[in-house]
This record gives sequence, structure tokens and C-alpha cells, in this order.
Amino acid sequence: MGLREDALELHRTHQGKLGVVSKVSVTNARDLSLAYSPGVAEPCKEIHQDTDRVYDYTSKGNLVAVVSDGTAVLGLGNIGPEAAMPVMEGKAVLFKQFAGVDAVPLCLNTTDEDRIVETVKLIEPTFGGVNLEDIAAPACFAIEERLKREMNIPVFHDDQHGTAIVTLAGLLNALKVVGKSMQDIRVVANGAGAAGIAIIKLLLSMGVRDVIMCDTKGAIYDGRMDGMNPIKEMIAKNTNHLKASGSLEEVIAGADVFIGVSAGGAVTQEMVRSMNRDAIIFAMANPDPEILPDDALSAGAKVVGTGRSDFPNQVNNVLAFPGIFRGALDVRATTINEEMKIAAAYAIANLIGEDEIRSDYVIPRPFDPRVAPNVAAAVAKAAMDSGVARLKVDPSDVASRTRDLAGIK
Amino acid sequence: MGLREDALELHRTHQGKLGVVSKVSVTNARDLSLAYSPGVAEPCKEIHQDTDRVYDYTSKGNLVAVVSDGTAVLGLGNIGPEAAMPVMEGKAVLFKQFAGVDAVPLCLNTTDEDRIVETVKLIEPTFGGVNLEDIAAPACFAIEERLKREMNIPVFHDDQHGTAIVTLAGLLNALKVVGKSMQDIRVVANGAGAAGIAIIKLLLSMGVRDVIMCDTKGAIYDGRMDGMNPIKEMIAKNTNHLKASGSLEEVIAGADVFIGVSAGGAVTQEMVRSMNRDAIIFAMANPDPEILPDDALSAGAKVVGTGRSDFPNQVNNVLAFPGIFRGALDVRATTINEEMKIAAAYAIANLIGEDEIRSDYVIPRPFDPRVAPNVAAAVAKAAMDSGVARLKVDPSDVASRTRDLAGIK
Repeated sequence: MGLREDALELHRTHQGKLGVVSKVSVTNARDLSLAYSPGVAEPCKEIHQDTDRVYDYTSKGNLVAVVSDGTAVLGLGNIGPEAAMPVMEGKAVLFKQFAGVDAVPLCLNTTDEDRIVETVKLIEPTFGGVNLEDIAAPACFAIEERLKREMNIPVFHDDQHGTAIVTLAGLLNALKVVGKSMQDIRVVANGAGAAGIAIIKLLLSMGVRDVIMCDTKGAIYDGRMDGMNPIKEMIAKNTNHLKASGSLEEVIAGADVFIGVSAGGAVTQEMVRSMNRDAIIFAMANPDPEILPDDALSAGAKVVGTGRSDFPNQVNNVLAFPGIFRGALDVRATTINEEMKIAAAYAIANLIGEDEIRSDYVIPRPFDPRVAPNVAAAVAKAAMDSGVARLKVDPSDVASRTRDLAGIK
Repeated sequence: MGLREDALELHRTHQGKLGVVSKVSVTNARDLSLAYSPGVAEPCKEIHQDTDRVYDYTSKGNLVAVVSDGTAVLGLGNIGPEAAMPVMEGKAVLFKQFAGVDAVPLCLNTTDEDRIVETVKLIEPTFGGVNLEDIAAPACFAIEERLKREMNIPVFHDDQHGTAIVTLAGLLNALKVVGKSMQDIRVVANGAGAAGIAIIKLLLSMGVRDVIMCDTKGAIYDGRMDGMNPIKEMIAKNTNHLKASGSLEEVIAGADVFIGVSAGGAVTQEMVRSMNRDAIIFAMANPDPEILPDDALSAGAKVVGTGRSDFPNQVNNVLAFPGIFRGALDVRATTINEEMKIAAAYAIANLIGEDEIRSDYVIPRPFDPRVAPNVAAAVAKAAMDSGVARLKVDPSDVASRTRDLAGIK
């Protein structure tokens, strides 16, 4: 059978991919009196005295809500909250499998920013973290920003930051391959959605100075009138200092790095030829990349990454989010800040030793068992170093706990 | 160690009692491409075409939200949403263990009726049912009523109906012991909270004609001015037709049945002696019943039930809610109606054969493995018969599926 039938059968066989499991056994009256009434009153009273003890006596500390409104699901667009469920369950499966995080889908029957924010805030007592998923831009930016400000648990929009972190990891190693530095490169990005914006923001915080971002109307620049929104205004103010206008085809000429989070076929071989020598291309449109790796390489590109598992250098969020939440939860971080994201990117990149880096191996493979433990430890350390951790732990303990929870030998 | 230390240790050992588990294995690129991108797009597209297919391809159909605002937790009162978590997790554990239902706690950071209703409505795409828990009266009545009206999945406030159903089951058998009938008995209830109100409503729908309900201010009657609310007004209009006023002590004289959901020690032996011959007493205050069984029996009562596992005839909700949700989910019921509740009560009561019924055995024991399958089958049948089932199934298949899911041999 093909992918379609296999995928449908996999989802049908067990009616979904996710179940709940009891960590305690309740088979007799004594068990019942401890796990439920009357014994359960004891942890309730402890938590009532000190709310923080909810982390000691309940599952909150390992429980993450995977929240979506179904407005930007995969490449399918606004298909609604029910149709988003398979993706959110899939995300929860990966959280569990890669880092032992207990994640639960929450698909919301609204696309209203205020109502999404309100709902997520109201469920805070139950969860140790919130992973936002497949919420359309630009609403996703405001939703995440407000939730981060108003909640005391980590809130992370994976479509933005997961992709940005793995892209940064790949870029760190790709720059070693071509012998260029963050400060000197010219980056052109295509696609001003959740991922594109987050990648550019992360690159700016890494010291990249020369960036031009394009959307469907071409280069974004300060003063452009057409198709702008507050996020693009912010991008316009912080990039493209020469206020270049024009199409992607025009502004890509001379660029060192192309970041594509747009649509299949957006980049031609001609455009790659117009780039600087040893061009780096992350063509992450799914399922069809902006340009196929072979076409890019034969047009002179040096390093090519895509979103696909059947090409080298797959930019796959699964390299980031499980370990990031594992690390954040294990130090009871109040947020996931820039320091933690950058630490995650280095943790991913540094798994490939200097002697192993090649143009077709700048990003570790998704099933490399070292990834999640390494990311978790680095994120935990960065949280402690940057003062957002509420627990102090040894990062190497976080790594080994990740291995235990994920069943990694 | 005592109960307190054992209970705290049980909750501490695994940091809570609940985990999430993947029903599919993701250990290689092919697995990942089926459970997640790109294969996951296929069930998404199917559901987008027909929302109802969410039941075929996701976990929604077996997923229940256990929702609380923490305002009436056990006998501890308004201890807040975090402190309510151990109870909600415990509930989820019992859902799983007794009937294979995947339940997830959702403790909400608000006690506002409108916001609770709004939040629960917004999560409807994710869940197959909603179990409301430990929400204080009278808000719980309006919340449940609004949610039942405005949602298309079953909504069930267990503190009301679970207790009412098991009490009715016990009463059905107790009446056989004493040879009285629903139509002829005089019932006096003490405690006008969630459980008390629901018990009285269910008894009225069973044909009981003579009921007096008391609260802390004594008998509730039409025209009473003190301490009333809309629900008590409704009770006043439908019970106590002679408009008896006075204390519990005064109105209990001559009663056939006492229903206590009030406070320890509320009933004296003197009061039991004033009741009709062969009195039936359900003294369900926890942990201390309104009167201890031995005291009630020696004062002339014939059948005594309590909420406690260390006395005979325990009125334990676990006899009802797992099987009720199992049955409702398996026929994809849109609600849990009176017919289904009454069917559940009979299914519980009838497990004790005519020849087995004794005054100290009118309610099956919590770990009787026949209970949940029997309740599930009866509830599924009642849902189909009353026209609220969206699937047609054989009730005996529901029973055997319950046994399979709960691991009952």
C-alpha cells in the first residue's frame, strides 16, 4: 500500500494515536483509598497550603498542552480544530517517544485571539507547559507574546521556534563548511509566516546583520505600503537597511544564504547561480522544496537542507521541541527564552564533530539518540544561567533522565 | 505507615498518577512519515471533508475531560484548581482502570460560571465527553445545564448524578429487603448540595411522591424565605406538598428513607427511632457518616449504607461513572439522559440476585468485575432506545469491549 492508505490505516486501527495510562495500580480497597478517597485528600491539602507542591504530587510537571485552533495545519491551511487533531496527537506521540513528555492535544473551537488566550490561561493549573501549534500568522505572534507575558509556565510556538532553532543549528555547521561567519553573511528569506519570522529574529539575535525578507509581494522594506502587518513592520525596521525593493529573484543575487519557508519551486537554478559563491540553501517548503537539492547543487550551491526525510540535512522540528520541553520542565523554567533556544541550536549542531561535518551532513538525523538528551541538558543549563529556572539540577542528570524516560539505551 | 504518609508517598513517587502513552511506535523514518508529517495529512484531509470522521482517526471518541474549578473538592471545600489536581487525576485513573476510558484532568483557574462554560465549550473538538467534578453548588447546576444544552457530546456532573445513580441502585434493592415500593415511601433528605439535589430529582423521576428535603435551615418548602436559591425553589415546588417546616429532627419522624449528604453526626439514634418501621438509611457524609451503621441498626433501621469502604453497602461513584461513559462513548451518545442514568442504576442493582439480597448487601462491591461491563451495556442500550445514540451497536459487544479495555478476565 502507499503512504496514504498506510497512514489512514495506522490512524484507524487504534482510533487515534494517543492513550492515557495510570502510573499507579488500583485493584483493591486499599489502593483505592490511597489513589482516591479518602487518601487523595492528603496531597490536596498539601497543595492547598503551598500551590507549588502541585509539582511534587501531581502530573502537572510533566504535562504539556498541545494547543491549536486548526488555522494553519501542515500545508493544508485552515482546516478546523477537528481536522487538526491527528497532527496534535502526532506531536504528543513525538513528545513522549523522544523525551518522555506527557502531552495532550487541545484543539479549540475558536480562531479568536482573545478567546484562545483566555482559554489557555485558564488551563494553566493543569499543565507544566504549553506548545502552540499550527496557528496562522500573524495571530500566532500576538497569542504567543500575550501568553508568555501572562503565564508562569513555558509557552512555545513550535512552528516558529522549533523550525528556527533547527535552521540555526544547520546554519552554524553550514557556515563551518563554507568558512563564513554570521557577521558577514547576507541572508535572503522567502515566506513571512510563523517560521520565517522566527528564523529571522533568531538570526538577528545571533549577530547576522544583512537580511532581506521577502513575502509574496517581494522584499519587505521600511516604507513599503502593500500587504504589511505589525510583524512585517518590525521586520522592515530591523532588516534590509538599504531598503531594497523588488522580487525575490532580484534581491537574492549576491546572497550567501537562502532561507525558504514559502512554496515549492520558488527558487530557480538561475537564481542560485546569481548568489554568492558557496551558497547555503535551506529550502523548507513541504512537501515540495523551493528548489530540489540536486538542482541547487548543480547550480553551484554548497550546502542544501530541506524539510524532507528523503534528502540530506532535514530540518525537522523533532530535533528540538522534545528536548527543549524536557529541559524546561526539569528545571521548572518559567519561560523558554532566547538563551535557551540558542543553547538548543548549539546542542543540536555540536553533535556533529568538526571532523564529521560535510556539506550533506550539517544537521543530525531525527533518530540520532543523542539529540534529545543533549538538547534537554543544554536548555536546562541555559535556563539556570539566565535566571528563569525555579529548580537547580545537574544538566547531566537531565540528559540521563531524558534517556530513561525516552527508553534510549 | 498510616494512610496519610502512604497516600503522600504514592503521589510523590511518580509525581502524580497519570501519564500519556503512544498507541503507535515511532522508531524509524517510515513510522515518522505515517504518524506525523507527511502521512498525517491524510486523516486530516478526511476529517476536513467530514468532521465526524474525527471519531475514526483520532482519540477523541475515547477521551474525556475531567473538569473542575476546585471549589468543592471532596469535603475540603474551595481549595483551588491546583489542589484539586490529585482528585481529578484519581478520577482519570479510575476511568481507565474500570472501563478503559482515557481521561485527562482540566483544572481551571476561574470560578466564574460564564468563563467555565465558555472554556469547556471551546475544547469540544478534542473530547468525546466531559465529566464535571467538584464544582460547588449552586453554580454546578447552571454550568451543567448550559453545557448539556450547548454541546453535542455527553456532559455529566459526577458529584450529582454518579451519587444519585448509586443511591438509587441501593434503594431499589433496599426496598425489596423491606417490602416497600417507590410510590409509597416517605423520603427525607438532608443536604441540598450537588448530590442531594440530584438524588431527589432522580427519585422524583422514579415515582417517589413524598419527599422532604432539608438544608442547614431545616425543611425546604414552597414559600420559605430564608437561604433559598433557584434550585431550592425548584425543589420546594416539587416536594414537601404539605409545606412542612421545621428541623430535620422534626420532619424525619415517620420517614421510610433517610438520605444524608450533609455532615457527620447529623442524625441521632432518637431520630432513627422516630422513623417508620424498617427504615432505610443512606448516611453518606464523608469521612464521618450522619450516623454510624451500628448505631442506626440498633435504633431500628433495617438497611444502612454509607460512603465508606469499611462498612457494608458503600455508595461509591466508581460503580457508575466508568461504565456510564463507556456506554455513552461506545454508541457516540450526544448526551447522558435520565433514561441512561436509570438504566445504570438498574444495571448496578440487578447484579445482586433476588436470592442474594440482604440488608447488608444491597449495593455491589466496588471491585465486582461485572459492574462496569453491565452498566456500559445497559447505558448503551438506553441511549439507543431513547434516540440519543449516533451509532448502533450490540450491547453485549459493549460489555465485552469494556472487559477487554479494563483488562477484566
